[in-house]
Amino acid sequence: MSQPEEQQWKLLLLEALVKERREEAQQVIEEVYPYDLANWYGELGKTEQERLLRYLDHERLADVIEELEIDEQLEVIRRLDVDHAGHVMDLMENDDVADILEELPDDEVDRLLSGMRPDEALVVRNLLTYPAETAGRLMTNRFIWVTDESTVGETIEKMRDYIEYSETINYVYVVNQLSQLVGVISYRDLILASNDERIADVMDRKVISVSSETDQEDVAKMFERYDLVSLPVVEGDVLVGLITVDDALDVLREEANEDIEKLSASGKSIDFDTKPWVAATRRLPWLILLLFIGLVSGSIISQFEETLSKVVALAFFMPMIAGMTGNTGTQSLAVVVRGLITREVDKRVVTRLIIRELRVGLIIGVTCGILIAIIAYVWQGDPILGLVVGSSLIITLIFGTLAGTIIPLILHRLNIDPAIASGPLITTLNDILSLLVYFGIATAFISRLM
Amino acid sequence: MSQPEEQQWKLLLLEALVKERREEAQQVIEEVYPYDLANWYGELGKTEQERLLRYLDHERLADVIEELEIDEQLEVIRRLDVDHAGHVMDLMENDDVADILEELPDDEVDRLLSGMRPDEALVVRNLLTYPAETAGRLMTNRFIWVTDESTVGETIEKMRDYIEYSETINYVYVVNQLSQLVGVISYRDLILASNDERIADVMDRKVISVSSETDQEDVAKMFERYDLVSLPVVEGDVLVGLITVDDALDVLREEANEDIEKLSASGKSIDFDTKPWVAATRRLPWLILLLFIGLVSGSIISQFEETLSKVVALAFFMPMIAGMTGNTGTQSLAVVVRGLITREVDKRVVTRLIIRELRVGLIIGVTCGILIAIIAYVWQGDPILGLVVGSSLIITLIFGTLAGTIIPLILHRLNIDPAIASGPLITTLNDILSLLVYFGIATAFISRLM
Repeated sequence: MSQPEEQQWKLLLLEALVKERREEAQQVIEEVYPYDLANWYGELGKTEQERLLRYLDHERLADVIEELEIDEQLEVIRRLDVDHAGHVMDLMENDDVADILEELPDDEVDRLLSGMRPDEALVVRNLLTYPAETAGRLMTNRFIWVTDESTVGETIEKMRDYIEYSETINYVYVVNQLSQLVGVISYRDLILASNDERIADVMDRKVISVSSETDQEDVAKMFERYDLVSLPVVEGDVLVGLITVDDALDVLREEANEDIEKLSASGKSIDFDTKPWVAATRRLPWLILLLFIGLVSGSIISQFEETLSKVVALAFFMPMIAGMTGNTGTQSLAVVVRGLITREVDKRVVTRLIIRELRVGLIIGVTCGILIAIIAYVWQGDPILGLVVGSSLIITLIFGTLAGTIIPLILHRLNIDPAIASGPLITTLNDILSLLVYFGIATAFISRLM
Repeated sequence: MSQPEEQQWKLLLLEALVKERREEAQQVIEEVYPYDLANWYGELGKTEQERLLRYLDHERLADVIEELEIDEQLEVIRRLDVDHAGHVMDLMENDDVADILEELPDDEVDRLLSGMRPDEALVVRNLLTYPAETAGRLMTNRFIWVTDESTVGETIEKMRDYIEYSETINYVYVVNQLSQLVGVISYRDLILASNDERIADVMDRKVISVSSETDQEDVAKMFERYDLVSLPVVEGDVLVGLITVDDALDVLREEANEDIEKLSASGKSIDFDTKPWVAATRRLPWLILLLFIGLVSGSIISQFEETLSKVVALAFFMPMIAGMTGNTGTQSLAVVVRGLITREVDKRVVTRLIIRELRVGLIIGVTCGILIAIIAYVWQGDPILGLVVGSSLIITLIFGTLAGTIIPLILHRLNIDPAIASGPLITTLNDILSLLVYFGIATAFISRLM
């Protein structure tokens, strides 16, 4: 659907809603995608929102809710009466329902689950027992499996029966009598096989699966590495659920956002709709932490008050030295954070990486150090000042590069997300380091400085 | 495949390669995934690498090459003779071949294309005419389409014929006599339909497509929004190719990495294997730019040399004020960069966002300003110094927050990727701003400062 078409549909829907023309609205609803409806929903007035919710049948409403932001999802679910909400939640993906319920107090969860079909409610309750951000929380029970004893004909029969129920995917998974996952067969191979063949004879026995405890980031990696469209989830060897590629895409986006958040030290997620007060209180803890770290820099400078009062020109180069050290650290950090996402890291890789970064720091340090030594000499006319600034920069750039490499590697080793060694934090720590080096060297040369 | 199993296969393969046992090696190759083979390839010695390449049949080799990093891909392709390389490239996905060839000089491209099947070479040449990072460059011509006149039986017949050739996907696309895309039918619906039905009667006419010029990031967004596994590419309305979800996953990862790179000002991609000299020269241009911006800060301080020499204590708060302003700017930047990825932005949204950030800046500024005023007073025993530092911080935090919001929005408006207003750049610009404000206020109060 092109942009102009989309605008036309939107206007048609809006008109139908304003004039309370149910049938006209439903015609538009038929033609557009749930994502677009969800997008427009946010832009409607309260009255039109109410009407839209009333005009949507259960299935459409389930699709639209799945596309809303979590805050909006909660609001819509709460607007519906328990029975209506229950019917809609029956039709939603279980993991989405679990995500919504997790935000609610226990009594409201029980009330909403009571409106759902008992078997669906049970599945959702079960999902809620898995920790957030694991394979168990991403999986669905809406998929088709058969036993290895079945024939292709029986499998196609089963597909016909469950077609409304299952998520559109490419594969039927095969289990043995103990419910253990033993194989997989693609829709394509089913089309090509004849009806009386046994599944065990046509299935592929090589099947990739994950355990329900697997971290969601590792799940997304599996999809990327093996170019999957779906991934079965097992406990022991028993097949318990299925993750589809759309969930992997969402995880990838979510994890990328988390990394960006951490690199910018904003902690919990803030989006365009977050209230100013909430956004400020989420950002403040980081800023106050960084304020105190900034004061550590200040107290280091105060230790060198005498040096500084004798040669005020030393202050001119402070922002440059601190900034450069912080920036080279952030660059190294980014290389490590990205690298750790895409590959396994062993001792050999770590050693090679540290040696590489040491060399990088040396090249960068010497280049920038010589450059600034010349600039400082020309600007302030003092060769010793040039020497002090230049040699300080060489040393701080080498240390800054190493700190930006080693700190995230240590965090990774301790199973802490290295992106948390966020840009500002490494920057500020490198600030302190660079000031110590700079004023240390300057104080040593103080008698020779003009 | 679990971690320990993977290790066992790896050892078996290594042993077979070292002992030149071709058949044993090929048994392992049968059992493992191309991704794992590609991963192990990098860890082998030259001799074993040669042998592995020889033991792989064309199809397997094509699969493995697709999983390698671009540098390794080039190396492998260059190791093969032209005919061998041609056969393998015939079997690779066209967009991957195009990505490799793009790195090579024209004469080598021609030489390699001459080894390929003429029709495949033509497709690749055609792909190379599309700009990088567009839908045209991501698409494959290996997919199944039928005309709307066909029957279900004929469609299944066509699928049988082209099965080896097509990428595994879930849908058959339907075109009319003018090759215009008019519908889509899922494998699932094909299974459920009877053989004599006409495709035009069972297909879904609502089909999402993109133009070949669409930016790859928008392509990835479509996959996310509409939960697609494949997306047809059109020129006019004519169907010219297909993009599969695995490409969307790669794009999403690639774009996330680019954002992280830009936020850390590292420019072109550096990974664990990049040589020190190359990594350093990729990082240096940014650092030298930031060095000169840092000197601008220095020259601002030098303008206030007199103020500073009178009250050296002013220097103690410089790193804190500059750092805080930079950090709040980066936080705002991250919110905007993430927000722009996930949603459309119009005037209304921009106005609301700027007002929100103004309020956030005010709350953050006043909180931190009062805090530091008290600290400065207690530490240095000078209430006027507390007032100067506190009021400077309030002002710089408000401006820093706004700069972090408005600069990326302007860049977005100018169709420049806002992530380029990278953390360090905003940080350094805010440095300059904060020093001007700080020393400006300090100079105004100089007579009252101790």
